[in-house]
Amino acid sequence: MTRAELQMLRSLRDKAHREEVGLYAVEGEKIVSELIAAGHPFERIYATGAWKGERTHEIAEAEMARASHFPTPSPVLAVGRIRREALGPGELDKGLTLALDGVQDPGNVGAILRIADWFGFDRVLLSPGCADLHSQKVIQASMGSFARVRAVVAEMGAALAGARAPVIGCELEGRDVHSLPAFRDAVVVIGSEGGGISGEARKRLSFSVTIPRVGAAESLNAAVAAAIVCDNLRRAAGRGP
Amino acid sequence: MTRAELQMLRSLRDKAHREEVGLYAVEGEKIVSELIAAGHPFERIYATGAWKGERTHEIAEAEMARASHFPTPSPVLAVGRIRREALGPGELDKGLTLALDGVQDPGNVGAILRIADWFGFDRVLLSPGCADLHSQKVIQASMGSFARVRAVVAEMGAALAGARAPVIGCELEGRDVHSLPAFRDAVVVIGSEGGGISGEARKRLSFSVTIPRVGAAESLNAAVAAAIVCDNLRRAAGRGP
Repeated sequence: MTRAELQMLRSLRDKAHREEVGLYAVEGEKIVSELIAAGHPFERIYATGAWKGERTHEIAEAEMARASHFPTPSPVLAVGRIRREALGPGELDKGLTLALDGVQDPGNVGAILRIADWFGFDRVLLSPGCADLHSQKVIQASMGSFARVRAVVAEMGAALAGARAPVIGCELEGRDVHSLPAFRDAVVVIGSEGGGISGEARKRLSFSVTIPRVGAAESLNAAVAAAIVCDNLRRAAGRGP
Repeated sequence: MTRAELQMLRSLRDKAHREEVGLYAVEGEKIVSELIAAGHPFERIYATGAWKGERTHEIAEAEMARASHFPTPSPVLAVGRIRREALGPGELDKGLTLALDGVQDPGNVGAILRIADWFGFDRVLLSPGCADLHSQKVIQASMGSFARVRAVVAEMGAALAGARAPVIGCELEGRDVHSLPAFRDAVVVIGSEGGGISGEARKRLSFSVTIPRVGAAESLNAAVAAAIVCDNLRRAAGRGP
């Protein structure tokens, strides 16, 4: 490998560099195996002799140590091309959408991709202020759901403005989530960990739901709240129309 | 501050040292404020001039930099005494318990304390293989619920053996969680992220519940699964006996 190639790989830890070259990198045996098993298209798979799976480039351990973003490099580093998905016309009108409005923690964004995958949501919408979808932490926390869930980055207020499906905010005040009726089409909006749903997005809410609290905690983690709303939506739908 | 004192504080990042001296440390303005607001008893609160809250010891920034576990020290470091809680006789027979069987990720353990707090559970039981309750990461992820939730470390099989309340495992196969009846007393068992519920604990289960899956994700995060089961238990109870 050339020095320039190693430097390019290493630079992919920064969002700005990823956007510049249109590529992202994922490291780690477990997550790369899961993504390959899910049929995720990688452009290149760099691996040392210790990696048992498929590869496009065999590299030396010393090269991996220079390319890797980890203090202890894994034997595999996969590179994918960033595809900038856009919402189709009327796309939010149909099916179930989880919309993340400024969810900044990459662990939460990854966990929410996994939740969307588990509950069979049709897509995840992310505002530009969310943790970057193509960061190692988001992809790793998604446990492979990154490969299966359609994820679109879009300005939240504008995207929700056109939606004909009910837009349901998940907030600390609102209707009891246990009273949610069955919706075939809906957008569930999850706000940021610190500030909740932004003003632009709040204007577009049809209504808000809240998770009944028995004890004293001030709030729930964003991924936890998202999961509870998804479970209640699916539960209502399971009872039939 | 003496050099020995600074070294002692710094050593509290390691579980073995915490157990040896019976103390733990928490750093960070937000989490320390929350714990103080919740009335949590600290033995000492070390703070620099930048900290606006209460303190027992004013220290210089250079001292904080040496005591701190963080690359960028916070202006406050609070020290508490580890209290080793034990289960009372028949304690699991009454009320609601979340039992963590080998949940190793400190973020998950902290999030589950917060969930137990939100849903008004009476206690959290942790097997010795769980992430250490007195680590910075667990306390921080609990968002202050560490101060409010009774948490007991105990060998899981033995603890569950004596419980007269139903012991409900959260697993990938089992009864539909949506069909849970109202329980005034119950123990909900959450297994480890990788291996699920251990053999010793599984022997003590009354039955298992599962969260209906619509999509393709292999599993849900331990904290997310715990939250969904708690919400369903509370929802059932809300409908009356």
